Amino acid sequence: MSERPPTCRVRFLPDDRTVEVECGETVLAAAQKAGIYISSLCGGDGICGKCRVILRSGKVSSKPTTLLDRDEIRENYILACQTTVQGDLVVEIPPETRVEEGKILGDEDAERFGLLSLVEGEGFPYAPLVRKYHLKLEPPSMDSPLAGHERLYQGILAHEPGASLQTGFAVLRDLNRILTQSNYDVTATIGRRKATTEVVQVEPGDTTASNFGLAIDIGTTTLVVQLIDLVSAKIVDSEAKYNSQMKYGEDYIHRIIYAEEHGALDEMQRLLVADLNELIEILVRRNDVHLHDITCAVCAGNTAMVHFLIGLDPSGIRREPYVPVANYIPPLRAAQVGLRINPRGLLYTLPSVAAYVGADITAGAVAIGLDQRDDLCLFIDVGTNGEVVLGNREWMVCCSASAGPAFEGVGVEYGMRAARGAIERIRISPDCRVEVETVGGAAPRGICGSGLLDLLAEMFKAGILARNGRFSEKCAASNLVERNGELRFIIVPKDQTAVGDDIVLTQADVSNLIRSKAAIYAAISILVKSVGVDLAEIKDIFLAGGFGNYLNIRSAITLGMLPDVPAERVHFVGNTAVAGARSALLSEEAFERIENVARTMTYIDLMANPKYMDEFVSANFIPHTDVERFPSVPAPRAAEGSPQGEN
Amino acid sequence: MSERPPTCRVRFLPDDRTVEVECGETVLAAAQKAGIYISSLCGGDGICGKCRVILRSGKVSSKPTTLLDRDEIRENYILACQTTVQGDLVVEIPPETRVEEGKILGDEDAERFGLLSLVEGEGFPYAPLVRKYHLKLEPPSMDSPLAGHERLYQGILAHEPGASLQTGFAVLRDLNRILTQSNYDVTATIGRRKATTEVVQVEPGDTTASNFGLAIDIGTTTLVVQLIDLVSAKIVDSEAKYNSQMKYGEDYIHRIIYAEEHGALDEMQRLLVADLNELIEILVRRNDVHLHDITCAVCAGNTAMVHFLIGLDPSGIRREPYVPVANYIPPLRAAQVGLRINPRGLLYTLPSVAAYVGADITAGAVAIGLDQRDDLCLFIDVGTNGEVVLGNREWMVCCSASAGPAFEGVGVEYGMRAARGAIERIRISPDCRVEVETVGGAAPRGICGSGLLDLLAEMFKAGILARNGRFSEKCAASNLVERNGELRFIIVPKDQTAVGDDIVLTQADVSNLIRSKAAIYAAISILVKSVGVDLAEIKDIFLAGGFGNYLNIRSAITLGMLPDVPAERVHFVGNTAVAGARSALLSEEAFERIENVARTMTYIDLMANPKYMDEFVSANFIPHTDVERFPSVPAPRAAEGSPQGEN
Repeated sequence: MSERPPTCRVRFLPDDRTVEVECGETVLAAAQKAGIYISSLCGGDGICGKCRVILRSGKVSSKPTTLLDRDEIRENYILACQTTVQGDLVVEIPPETRVEEGKILGDEDAERFGLLSLVEGEGFPYAPLVRKYHLKLEPPSMDSPLAGHERLYQGILAHEPGASLQTGFAVLRDLNRILTQSNYDVTATIGRRKATTEVVQVEPGDTTASNFGLAIDIGTTTLVVQLIDLVSAKIVDSEAKYNSQMKYGEDYIHRIIYAEEHGALDEMQRLLVADLNELIEILVRRNDVHLHDITCAVCAGNTAMVHFLIGLDPSGIRREPYVPVANYIPPLRAAQVGLRINPRGLLYTLPSVAAYVGADITAGAVAIGLDQRDDLCLFIDVGTNGEVVLGNREWMVCCSASAGPAFEGVGVEYGMRAARGAIERIRISPDCRVEVETVGGAAPRGICGSGLLDLLAEMFKAGILARNGRFSEKCAASNLVERNGELRFIIVPKDQTAVGDDIVLTQADVSNLIRSKAAIYAAISILVKSVGVDLAEIKDIFLAGGFGNYLNIRSAITLGMLPDVPAERVHFVGNTAVAGARSALLSEEAFERIENVARTMTYIDLMANPKYMDEFVSANFIPHTDVERFPSVPAPRAAEGSPQGEN
Repeated sequence: MSERPPTCRVRFLPDDRTVEVECGETVLAAAQKAGIYISSLCGGDGICGKCRVILRSGKVSSKPTTLLDRDEIRENYILACQTTVQGDLVVEIPPETRVEEGKILGDEDAERFGLLSLVEGEGFPYAPLVRKYHLKLEPPSMDSPLAGHERLYQGILAHEPGASLQTGFAVLRDLNRILTQSNYDVTATIGRRKATTEVVQVEPGDTTASNFGLAIDIGTTTLVVQLIDLVSAKIVDSEAKYNSQMKYGEDYIHRIIYAEEHGALDEMQRLLVADLNELIEILVRRNDVHLHDITCAVCAGNTAMVHFLIGLDPSGIRREPYVPVANYIPPLRAAQVGLRINPRGLLYTLPSVAAYVGADITAGAVAIGLDQRDDLCLFIDVGTNGEVVLGNREWMVCCSASAGPAFEGVGVEYGMRAARGAIERIRISPDCRVEVETVGGAAPRGICGSGLLDLLAEMFKAGILARNGRFSEKCAASNLVERNGELRFIIVPKDQTAVGDDIVLTQADVSNLIRSKAAIYAAISILVKSVGVDLAEIKDIFLAGGFGNYLNIRSAITLGMLPDVPAERVHFVGNTAVAGARSALLSEEAFERIENVARTMTYIDLMANPKYMDEFVSANFIPHTDVERFPSVPAPRAAEGSPQGEN
């Protein structure tokens, strides 16, 4: 009864090329046979949704997909990889689906920027959360009649003794084909889901050389994705962008309000996932990695951003008693939230402590090894919120202050991420000449966090900036111009920039930056006092944040962001959230330590502390109202604008 | 910024009723408001697919669904419960979607038949695989800021200490709404998935009184579904039907060949799932149970049927070395295979031993407590295959013989399931008068398994049937008629039946039935000999199968289906597969015992045993070629047609 399948003719428009294929082939395969290259990131897995084409006539059979909406289906859009030819067809390739040779993705801003790996994952035993085993199983015989699935388990259990294995529906359905076609020579990908070890996928042959993961930091302002080779345990590439949710509010409280008032939680989730998918797409294209080979993602981020990612109602975060839906999110399939990696790939969301201390902090604390240090240490993460953790292996307390995104380049006229062309170092000579260094040595386009810190500290030292943050006209008037009644300090004149205009710092920028640093200093101050320790007892201070590759600790002290301790005790550790996510990706032990930190860290509510506002107001000067707290910071060359009541 | 949602007008055809609703309401809600009753089994969960309507004009927003295919979407079909009104609409209710009052589902054959519960689940501690806990959680406060998800876990862990909990995406997404709307007074449904305990759903308030499960036996010929109240641990109702796959072959080997040669595995799966959904629909409608409240299903069935249910390639079952894809199937979501219960409900498929000894046998062995008996016992399950298990708490061996579906009423002209009107008991008086009893006392429609056993034994005793299975004309010629050259024995004349014709037994029927009983006897014989025990050492014999409510053990011995042991040692236990599935549904311990039986039972291949064919041929007489094996069976009143070589 076995019949040779008949052939069908497929005509592709607008090329008007016709090809004959076996009926039952996919439209994608037909296009390939016709020499027409259709966009497909996932290689036909039905994940990326890039291969949408329009069926002009003929009979097809399509697998259900959520990547086309009802209107698109009604306009005859189909996914070429999920649709089989069931008769003679005419198919149109829309322009967006055509692969143009040599097309370069992304703009200049999307170029790789060297995301600093200032903390090493040393000390974490290598055991990725999702790993592959090449299994050369003995094919069944009359003497060895073990069923395929149990044979697979036997093979995996040889590597993972005692594991409680679980196999999902999709893997089971495909198992026999893969086992028999490969003659039982397969690679099993397994993922940890708490007490259970899931068989995430089974592939024919040995694919153990290709296994990638994503370390993700979802900031309120900045999103960072690192592509990690899970085999070599190396960072392949990193990419970052601003969070598109920013149009609904700079801080997450405003976004939560917006989402509530407009029923826009889905929209918030969609924006975030689209941003992450954009970063993932850039990374896989640039590094020639197949989406299918990305088997997991570990995600850090503050509690609100994690809620938006998963689509959890964040409204409890902004209202008394400030309780999130979940601090702990179980491992999910990444596809469930819309992340386009391997459709069976797992998403591990790291745990939070409380509404205002998120997974970025638990991940960061483990990344710097705070949970294993004997000595008392301070961990400060400067993002849109500034979180501070004090503790050691025995205890940890934490708090959070609204710092705002100024040091991430937002709310500062020429602020930008630490991407190519960002000014990251600044020196101002006694005669007020400004020297800058940029990321990648490119023509300046703006200023990133570390550049802003340097700029304010150098301007203060040069006497251009008074203690109250006002520009001083007594020095370097040549750099100061007025526009619309506001003074602007020219950092790089028009003819030397890549933006066709002067790169400047405005008076409003300064106010934003000082408020940011004051919020952080006040949080440190309250936390240290609340547990009754002295700054001198603190052995090391770790300063984290997306400032750039380089950060001048002295500038941070001069500005009064950090307390005046010997600079050698302060360590700039870059983005510790993504470093922690990376450690978890590569080491079950790191993952478990982060879970442990989340369980044991004590949260202190600054808003409930009546002294916080006093501390914040006092810190709204450079370096501080109380200069005695900063003995190492010299008085500026031209002291002006000192606050009232100063000694 | 919060705006009052505008209203939209929805006009329903063909009634031409128009109603005004808030834009954003579902079409189903609009229909209800218009007083139009749309078919919906699931109450708007998007599971049942019954509420399909046609959008004639207007703007809607639909959730993605796999219950409508591409063509239906293109013909403007929508699911009323999954589609929201986004503007003025015109909606047509197609006839199949209208709920007609007083409509009676199913035909007479689908009426409830009393499926025998001959084995009691006693001894199994009550602990359903999926259970509900009413949790009166303390709402969060400044003094108790535990997150909602962790608060839920705390509540569940009070009932399930030490459980490794896991929550799926859908539950997480809805959690906050349910917790806050119910003021933290919720019911959590939890399900065992090996080492992990899954939070299957969270509902507002106390729903613990409504929790149902399905015990399913997927036979090659007959499908049985029992609706079980998981709270009272009682059978609510049962329903059965023939397996629609039968059109592709009476035995599963032919269906596997068909599926292979026609690429029809999906079709086989679809047929099976449609059958089960039909049975489920009958059960929920008849008992006024909500699909949403069916939280789990436990499924027994032979290995091939389990492969078809899950959609696993069964081809290994029919080819050397006869290895299935899986004997052990992990718990899945029932919706993944298309079973329409609660969309988050779990499907537990019981484990098989080998290609030819399936979950029906492991479930049955535990249902009769074979795995805990000290004495040696024999367990015989007569289905389309006849499986035999010999053993006790220390060891078990099993084998399988192709008996064919004759005792399930298939391949027998008036054979039928043990449904209403089936003749289940027959007596033939010395003067050849036939007395029958039917299921439900209804007018006879056919003969079920127990009736067929009685019939043959009684005909043999009355001398109407010779030892070789030929009708004897010496007696009761009045009951024997010839049609198309074949003799037919009239059991019930036309005027006393519900079918408008004589209910008869044909010579071909007899041959089928004798082949069936011979296969079973031969299997028993070989199994007992292969382990070197004597029938006298066997304390109890358990005979299982879908014969009906009643089975005359003496008839089974007279016919030579069972060995000639004292009748009091033989126990008819009905459908043990569904009984085992029910025990597992109600008791984790039973579930684990079934898993243990599957791991430890030893399979003996009859086909590889050269003596099997001899035994089978010798058993093709009534009661057997070797009458000395059956000393208790009297010679018939008119001995005819004795085989050659008989002593």
